[in-house]
Amino acid sequence: MAGDPEGRLEEFLTKVRADLDRTVNFWLQHSHDNENGGFFICLGEDGHVYDETKYTWLESRQVWMYARLYNEVERFRTPAILAAAEKGAEFLVQHVKRVDTGKCYLALTRHGLPLKTQRTIFSECFYLMALSELSRANGNVAYRDEALSMMARILYWVREDDTDLGREKLAGNSPCSTLAVPMMLLCLIGQMTTMDPILAGQYADTERWCLSEVTKHVQRNGSVILENVTPDAKELPGCHAIEAGWFLLQTAKRKQDSALQTTAIDSFIQASFKRGWDEQYGGIFYFLDVDGESPVQLEWDMKLWWPHCEALIAFLMAYSSTGDAKLLDNFAKVFDYSYSHFVDEKHGEWFGYLNRRGEVTHRFKGGPWKGCFHVPRSLMMCEQMLQRLIKEKKTSA
Amino acid sequence: MAGDPEGRLEEFLTKVRADLDRTVNFWLQHSHDNENGGFFICLGEDGHVYDETKYTWLESRQVWMYARLYNEVERFRTPAILAAAEKGAEFLVQHVKRVDTGKCYLALTRHGLPLKTQRTIFSECFYLMALSELSRANGNVAYRDEALSMMARILYWVREDDTDLGREKLAGNSPCSTLAVPMMLLCLIGQMTTMDPILAGQYADTERWCLSEVTKHVQRNGSVILENVTPDAKELPGCHAIEAGWFLLQTAKRKQDSALQTTAIDSFIQASFKRGWDEQYGGIFYFLDVDGESPVQLEWDMKLWWPHCEALIAFLMAYSSTGDAKLLDNFAKVFDYSYSHFVDEKHGEWFGYLNRRGEVTHRFKGGPWKGCFHVPRSLMMCEQMLQRLIKEKKTSA
Repeated sequence: MAGDPEGRLEEFLTKVRADLDRTVNFWLQHSHDNENGGFFICLGEDGHVYDETKYTWLESRQVWMYARLYNEVERFRTPAILAAAEKGAEFLVQHVKRVDTGKCYLALTRHGLPLKTQRTIFSECFYLMALSELSRANGNVAYRDEALSMMARILYWVREDDTDLGREKLAGNSPCSTLAVPMMLLCLIGQMTTMDPILAGQYADTERWCLSEVTKHVQRNGSVILENVTPDAKELPGCHAIEAGWFLLQTAKRKQDSALQTTAIDSFIQASFKRGWDEQYGGIFYFLDVDGESPVQLEWDMKLWWPHCEALIAFLMAYSSTGDAKLLDNFAKVFDYSYSHFVDEKHGEWFGYLNRRGEVTHRFKGGPWKGCFHVPRSLMMCEQMLQRLIKEKKTSA
Repeated sequence: MAGDPEGRLEEFLTKVRADLDRTVNFWLQHSHDNENGGFFICLGEDGHVYDETKYTWLESRQVWMYARLYNEVERFRTPAILAAAEKGAEFLVQHVKRVDTGKCYLALTRHGLPLKTQRTIFSECFYLMALSELSRANGNVAYRDEALSMMARILYWVREDDTDLGREKLAGNSPCSTLAVPMMLLCLIGQMTTMDPILAGQYADTERWCLSEVTKHVQRNGSVILENVTPDAKELPGCHAIEAGWFLLQTAKRKQDSALQTTAIDSFIQASFKRGWDEQYGGIFYFLDVDGESPVQLEWDMKLWWPHCEALIAFLMAYSSTGDAKLLDNFAKVFDYSYSHFVDEKHGEWFGYLNRRGEVTHRFKGGPWKGCFHVPRSLMMCEQMLQRLIKEKKTSA
């Protein structure tokens, strides 16, 4: 597996492509609820349904994923994929929104009855992503309008008044700037301008605000990215920095901002990876504490699938932007770890949870926090980037 | 370490007693906030404070623990212990209750400002336990009255109307009978009648209701205890059964109910232990799924301190009730595992979290879910039971 990573581009592409096919087939075969619409999320190792709860984050992300595959990857531009995305979207539109506040429920029964709410904006964000991407695929104006109106509502909650979210303000709560909210908004802006580039102007002010919020989380001379920063910049533990890195790198490209590109690659991607990689057993730790305390999260030393999916995207995107060979070395490191630990060639999809030593601790493929999203998104983006890299190499040769 | 457990009673007692002293000293030395009152909970391996948040469950349990030690163990009947309990109770009484609904906040800042609420009854239950036990220690009638009034309020929420708890009822929610609520009420009844035996009559009807609710969780011919049972008895995964076992065994003793004693020992304690013990690496798994699925909880295969604390109590109590040697064998098994994995003889208290192989994964002694409670309660109760067993043995010899 070792050797010069620049000589392995074809090998990476072949494996990623086959894995994407297996993964998409896994969800197409096992997750569709043909009776009620929507998708079963909780699927065992071989795809059997072990729980019928429908989680809005994951229902929405699966719609988005199918629509994005349909829009961008030729072999997935099939009537079956489009129909599956549409059937998922219809289930959401019918069941997920509250009539009173316009918020979305967090979880539904298989028949679409509400089970849980959450006092954040994230269910709404993923709902918007789903409808926005699907409207690109089928040209349905109702989906586009619903995405636009949900975007306006989310921006109002974040920047004007969040009373509708139902979070009680208590006297001891200090204002806390989290990385998740501005990152999510950048992601939504990227989605909406992908749907319609003309919207860029409308969201330019919000984009500037998001970038300034995100920058506050770069601390200690650019060596550490923190998940939460209180206004007096007290440092708190966190992760997600590598994922944030490739969002920022995309934004930097769109805005042709080379300073932002440097921050994204050096501080968000490289420095976080250096801190988060387990030199002893390999793999990326889930949580670390900047001051060396034991994180209180029970899973801190586990190896979870999604940070590895995000790191694959981040390093390949950073390498594509700069040609710096050490970025491709890190891609290869994460690739080799993932393909020897997470990937299930037999049934498709990845296992989600390993202990520190890299042994699978949870055998399910889908669960309350894992659906048809991180794995296929990463594989799709890596396939696209690898194809471009190989093509460029042939052209320049 | 091996050998006949009946010959090891003195050894068990010596170790447990020394460990209780170390543990109580750990909290006395490191956790007191002399400036604002109350206790720091988040303490590192050596006792340093790494987070100042005050969690109501753990503040209350520490008051209860100090008061119980004062009331029941001669060497802890000191003015310093009583003063510490009183200072903790004063902090609670001043800061923890909402003026509007009478509910308790879940978490406070070090100065007592509210940080979080929770839409359950548990903060209120532990608050009641603290004041009730302390009123036994210092005879303060105000604490006794506050405990009585909170008990009435909790019973109203559980059996009449839970609107005050603020849980929204959604159309997809099915009524679900959890083991936690009736077990907690049995525990409260035990506490209140310890404070004042005359109250037994007042709570007799609730006690009957609790016992009938608890029995619903015994499934599959008594071989499995389930955490949640929906009215149509659908089975869902769970734990806590061993802890519930010794609560029930206490209740069985008080009511001289031998059928309940058999259920408590055979189904709750022995069968759960048999299912939960890790034959490969030792220790009790945190979660298991009755149908062999991977539990979705990330910590399912970890070894946590508190089920081991509860198992020590349960097996020693069951052995004391029956004299059955195999119950003492299981006590010895849990004892040996705990004293070679969890106990920190250097700084005092136990580590809380081990991976499946038994390696410490989180080095802190106190955290959002671990305070001055499970370890010292278990050690105190084991010390008391071991003393009685040794005395009985000498008498009968």
